[in-house]
This record gives sequence, C-alpha cells and structure tokens, in this order.
Amino acid sequence: MEEYMVPHLATTLTGPLNELEQHILDSTPAVERWFRLEWMEHTPTLYSAVVLRNSGFKVGPMYVSLFPDCWQLLSPDVTQLCVQAAMAAIEKICPEAQNLLIIPDDRLEEPSYLANLQSLRKIFRLVGLNVRFASIHPEFSQTRQYALPDGADITVEPLLRDNNRVGLPHFSPCAVLLNNPLSNGIPGILEDLFEQYILPPPHAGVTMGTPSLHARCYEELCKRFGKFLGIDPWLISPLYSKCEKVDLFTPAGKQALAASVDALLAKIRRKYKEYRITDTPVVSVRLDTDPLYGVLVLSSGSELETAMAQAKPPPEGSLSLVLQEGVHSCESIDDMDATPVVYTIDRYVVGGYYRTGKVELNAPITLNADSAASFYPLVFDASVHQTPGSGKKPAAAAPNRFYMYGVIARLSMLAASYALEATDPQNEPL
Amino acid sequence: MEEYMVPHLATTLTGPLNELEQHILDSTPAVERWFRLEWMEHTPTLYSAVVLRNSGFKVGPMYVSLFPDCWQLLSPDVTQLCVQAAMAAIEKICPEAQNLLIIPDDRLEEPSYLANLQSLRKIFRLVGLNVRFASIHPEFSQTRQYALPDGADITVEPLLRDNNRVGLPHFSPCAVLLNNPLSNGIPGILEDLFEQYILPPPHAGVTMGTPSLHARCYEELCKRFGKFLGIDPWLISPLYSKCEKVDLFTPAGKQALAASVDALLAKIRRKYKEYRITDTPVVSVRLDTDPLYGVLVLSSGSELETAMAQAKPPPEGSLSLVLQEGVHSCESIDDMDATPVVYTIDRYVVGGYYRTGKVELNAPITLNADSAASFYPLVFDASVHQTPGSGKKPAAAAPNRFYMYGVIARLSMLAASYALEATDPQNEPL
Repeated sequence: MEEYMVPHLATTLTGPLNELEQHILDSTPAVERWFRLEWMEHTPTLYSAVVLRNSGFKVGPMYVSLFPDCWQLLSPDVTQLCVQAAMAAIEKICPEAQNLLIIPDDRLEEPSYLANLQSLRKIFRLVGLNVRFASIHPEFSQTRQYALPDGADITVEPLLRDNNRVGLPHFSPCAVLLNNPLSNGIPGILEDLFEQYILPPPHAGVTMGTPSLHARCYEELCKRFGKFLGIDPWLISPLYSKCEKVDLFTPAGKQALAASVDALLAKIRRKYKEYRITDTPVVSVRLDTDPLYGVLVLSSGSELETAMAQAKPPPEGSLSLVLQEGVHSCESIDDMDATPVVYTIDRYVVGGYYRTGKVELNAPITLNADSAASFYPLVFDASVHQTPGSGKKPAAAAPNRFYMYGVIARLSMLAASYALEATDPQNEPL
Repeated sequence: MEEYMVPHLATTLTGPLNELEQHILDSTPAVERWFRLEWMEHTPTLYSAVVLRNSGFKVGPMYVSLFPDCWQLLSPDVTQLCVQAAMAAIEKICPEAQNLLIIPDDRLEEPSYLANLQSLRKIFRLVGLNVRFASIHPEFSQTRQYALPDGADITVEPLLRDNNRVGLPHFSPCAVLLNNPLSNGIPGILEDLFEQYILPPPHAGVTMGTPSLHARCYEELCKRFGKFLGIDPWLISPLYSKCEKVDLFTPAGKQALAASVDALLAKIRRKYKEYRITDTPVVSVRLDTDPLYGVLVLSSGSELETAMAQAKPPPEGSLSLVLQEGVHSCESIDDMDATPVVYTIDRYVVGGYYRTGKVELNAPITLNADSAASFYPLVFDASVHQTPGSGKKPAAAAPNRFYMYGVIARLSMLAASYALEATDPQNEPL
C-alpha cells in the first residue's frame, strides 16, 4: 500500500496553530462528545467534501460540497469506513430501504466522473442497496451505457415521475441520492416528493450557493466551539463580511465595496498583529448569489479599480457580495501547493486526499481538478501519530494533520446542516 | 503495512462451499438488508469475537465471546473502523455519555491482557469518552498501576457502589463495559444497576455459558437465512443435540449418551453422503452448564468408555450435555492450522485475525492463545477481492474469505442477541 503514502508532504506550522492542534488532540474525548451532542439536535448531511486550506498559522474550510464527486480518489483502504458510515446513515433514515437511485450531474462523458459514480455504487451496494442511476437532464431521453476502464459499465436511465414518486421502470427507490448540485434550481420532476427521501434535500443547492449563509453558520459554530475548548476561533475560521445592494458600475458602489474591503482588512491586520504574522492580508470578493462567477483578490480597497479592469465584468445592477479573508496554503508536496480535501458520510470523517497544484486565491474552488493536478489519498495511518494519542507531540512526528482536519471538516459540515435548517422550505421562515 | 498481510494462507474449498461463498457475494445487497431488518427488531451486543472454523466444505462458529479480549491483535489499520462502530453504538445507547468504566477480568498481570485494555481505552477515548478501569475482584482493594511496554500505564481501581450506581471517586460513568465474563455469576456489586448501562448485560455470562441455547438460536437463524438465500443451512451451521439428565457414572447414563452420539453421527453421515464428503464425522460432547470443563471427541458411541478413561472424570450426578458436529480446519498458514477470529462492534464487522496453531477438537475454545500460537491480522484488503464486487470469482482470487466470515460472525452474534433476549431477567419468562 506504499503508493498511498503522502510523498514529501511539507507543512510548516507556527506557534498558535501547533498549540491549537495539540489542544484539539489532547481534548479528543471532549471534542467527540461535543459533536455527539450537536448531532442530537441537528441532522448531518448524508455526505460532504470539504476543501481546507492551511496557511501555517490558521486553517479554514474554503469550499463545502454537499453533492461531492471524486469518491474514486479516496484510498480503497477506506471503502469499509465509507460503507459502515453509510450503513449508519441508512439505518436512521430509511432502514427498510431496498433501492437507491443516484442522480448524477451532466458530466457523463468524463471518465473521472464515471469512476466517481462507480465508487458510489460500490459503497451503497455494500450497504445493502440496489443502486441505479437516473438523469434529470431534460434532453436525456434514452437509456445509455457508459463503459468503465475495468470492463464494467454504468447504465443511466431517464428519470420517471409517477404521481408523488420518482423512479425507473420496476424500480421504486426509498431514497434518492443527489450527486448533482441542481445549479439551475430544483427541477419540476424533483419537487414535492414527500414520499421519498431526497439526500441531501433539493434546496441544498441554493443554500450552498449563498456562501455568506454558510460563513455565518460556520462563524457562530466556531465561536461556540472555541469557547468550549478555550481557543481563539479565528485560528479555524476566516473572517468575512457582506456588502449588499452595490452596483459596481457606479462610483458609489465601488466606493462602498472598497470601504468594506478596507474594513475587513483592518480586522485581519489586528489579528495578524496579535499573532505577529508578517504576511500581507488579502480579501476575496465573490457574488453571494453565484460564488463560481469569479473572484477578486485585494490587499487594499484602492486596488479595486485595477482588479476589476483585469477581471470578467460583474453583472449589472444591484449586487450582493461576500468578502472573505484569504487563506494561503503552506502545505506542499514535491514543491507544489497541497490542499487537503476531507470527505464525510453521515457524522463520520471517512477519508480524504491531498490535491496538488498551484493554489490561486482568485480562482473559484470546486472539487474538479484541472488536468495538471495530482491526488494523494490521505490514509488513516497505522502509526500512533494518526489517531491521536494523548501526550504525543504531533509536531515532532511525521506531519499528520488528519484529526484536526477532520474536526474542521465536521464543523464545516455541521454549519451546512445549520444552513439547511435555516433555509428548509418546510420550516417556518426565520 | 506489509507485515499485516497474511503469509501463505492456504485454503482448499470444495464445491458446495465455493458456491455458497459466491452466492453470498453475489447477494450482498440482499444479505446486508436482511441484517438491517433484523437489527430493527433486535439489539446487537456491544462487542463480540467469533472463532470460526472452515473445513473446506462447511464453515461454522465454534465460540462466541461477548466479553472479547485480544483487541491488540487487530491491525492498527482497523482502529478507525472500531471507533466509528463504537460511536454508532454509544450514540444509540447513551448519546450524552461522558465517562466509560471498563471492568477487566483478573488477568491484570498478563502483558497481553493489559495490551488488550490499552486498545479498548484507545478506541473509546476516540469515541469521545473518558475511560477508567475498575476491578470487581473481592480482594482488589487498592488502586494499582500496571506499566505497559510503550511507557504508558493502566490504572485499575477498586469498584465502588453508591446506592444504585457504581463508579470511582469523582467518576460516575453512564456506561459500564464488561471485559469480564463473570464466570462465577453476577457479583452483588453489579446487581440491580438500573440507572447505568451495563454492556453487555451481566446475565450474558450465564447465557453464553449454556452452549445449547446459542446453538439453538444460531440453528434457527441459519434456517431462516438459508431459506432466504436459497442455501443449505448445514453449510454454515454445525448439527447439535442435547442429552439431558444423564449420570455418566451409571451404565444407563453412558448408554444414553452413546446412543445420542450415534444418532447425531447418523445425521452427519447423511449430510456427508449428500455432499460426497469422505471425511470421518466426529461429535464433541461438552457440559451444557460449563463448556470449558472439558471436551470428549467421538467418532462412534462405542468409543465413549475409552475416551472417558483418558479424560478428566465428569462431575458426579445428573448432567446436561451438549453434542455438536465437529468441524475440522482446512486453512493453514506456514503449514499450521489457521483459525479465523472475527470481531464485531455494534452491528458492524470491524476486523479480525488468523490464529495459528494446531486445532485440537478436544480442547475447549477460548480467545486466549497458548504461547506457541501466532496471530496474523486480517486486513480489509484494498484489492477488489476483499470487499465483494459482483461478478468476481473469489475462488480464483487470492484466498479471501473475509466477507463470508463476516456474515457468519454476524449471524453468530445475532444468535447471541436472541439468546440474551430469551434469558433477560427483566423479560417475562418464555
């Protein structure tokens, strides 16, 4: 299994983050119980992938997918962990379930996406479910088989709606797994399905498409978690702010945004000073309605004009913008930036990988890798440094951040659960 | 991780068992759902270890421990699986739990037993519980520290009772984990503890000390499971019978036992004939009240007199005996018999190992190894042959019985749950 070891991972942590990690490791029983109590009140999302960035002095979640793909990048060593976690989830949601329908997104011609579907099929088959795939693309009208490199294939059929249920011929699933973010909104065929479990709920796409909502839930959670553990929440939570109703085609709009950027930078500078960090703080600016539209990265409000001139023009009219503290990456593999991605199923961290390739603060983050990137599965290492043992010095050991990363990924996934509750159309409006 | 691979495992399976395994692998979703539905009605034991034997034409559980030790023999690669399964268990039993008290047995001077306690402490600490150890030995009156080879230690304190609860000074556990089979009956200090969860329930020692009860529950389960899958339950279930109220110091008693032995042998011979098995069938005879007292192995009722003369004399008076079909071992590692041992936590198979050393049909089975035995952790192999994939031919692949063994271990653990329900003093008598 040598091939799954992380080669030459280099991470330089500075004082406060080292202390934070040591504190989290020493407090494992309390941390785990804290999460256990949270899950008595809140429902974990069926699955998630969280992209983290570790700047050496702070760690933060940069992107959370509630429709994660790239499952094929996890080490085969963690398949059984995935299966066990998914069993626990299904047992709670629909213990009698026999069939699971997976709704893929539209990248059915991409071999890596098909490999992802194959991994999901394997996991849920081992959970004890018959798995089939159905497309919701309006032009997908005929069953198609997609060949996989190992000789197996993936059959995708057009989704059928019959009164209050969706399914396939002779296949009525108890649960429907969305592997599709529904970026264009919830399609009619998936509306008002009260007899079946849609996982995650269809409104998750819109909820997660509003980054300020997740940022707010995450910030609140980190405050509580930080108070509980006696740590500064800033070490795990990027600062953010909102700038609403601005028209970037007007001088007043630009001025308002530049002022917001400078206000957030001032806050960041205060924290940098507190921890004697000499880096130049930056702020990213995105649309709160469409975070993938584009990103501006600024180290001063005065840079706005120049940055806008070099970027894709913003949409016209009144915009809602979200500003976030930029977190650089200090981890590298073979001299390339290495970004950890952590996967969860139900309340459990089940695996992850390092993605290498230059971290560009001004590029939208997704799970999709450009072709140049490599992936190194994160394995639950057999060494004592992997699963935390009290009294060990993790900093002195081989670099292994997995437990701390798992905690932050779970905080991030929990924040997504809060955001889903706050936006659930079946709940009373807040 | 090379050191955990099983070296030179040689297993020769014959036709029907090969077919059975293939059938189980092909039916994974149905098998897993079958278990899921069982667990809707029955409660899994918190943990178990099941010793299996595979004769090449049939597999059967030989021994089930509901107070398993030897956790240190599992591969470190499965620690996270153990933690996750134990998290799922604690979440259902006592989600608010902060403290876990482990009651060890009396082998506190044995380094291997201490290593077992260390492994349990590690697992439950990662679950999110503060773990301490308390002895119930009547002469254990002072706190003692036991050093471990890695420099850590295990502190064992005398158990305290305070009204309706047990605990330690400043430590009131929500759950008490028995790692002690309570062979001398339930001690007074553990009686009537209705405010705390005792895991497994204290009557488990007596229940599992009556092998015919587990054999009956297991046989019934295998019949149902066999019918469900369309397989002959005999392939996974040793035949057994009871011989009650016999005094082996009287000719009539010996005659009755010899006749029972011959009757069971006749049944086994019929099955051997059906499957064209040319081995000589044998029957083991044990006390149904004290299975560890000793074992007689007979290939004919006429051998009883001679066998008794060579064995430890039976207790006097009227005895209750359990007769069971002997299952030889056909698996070997480095030319030594290899016996698989499978561990479960909650409803999940979490790991196991092969124990090598001569299989003696006439020796009582426990988890304890004699000093000559070696252990080879069973790893959830990364290969496709490990976790079953449909359409693969497991017989053609590297020998890997782990999924089938996991199914049989779970049937066996489920049978223990049935037996515990049938003997629960809080239930109405049957």
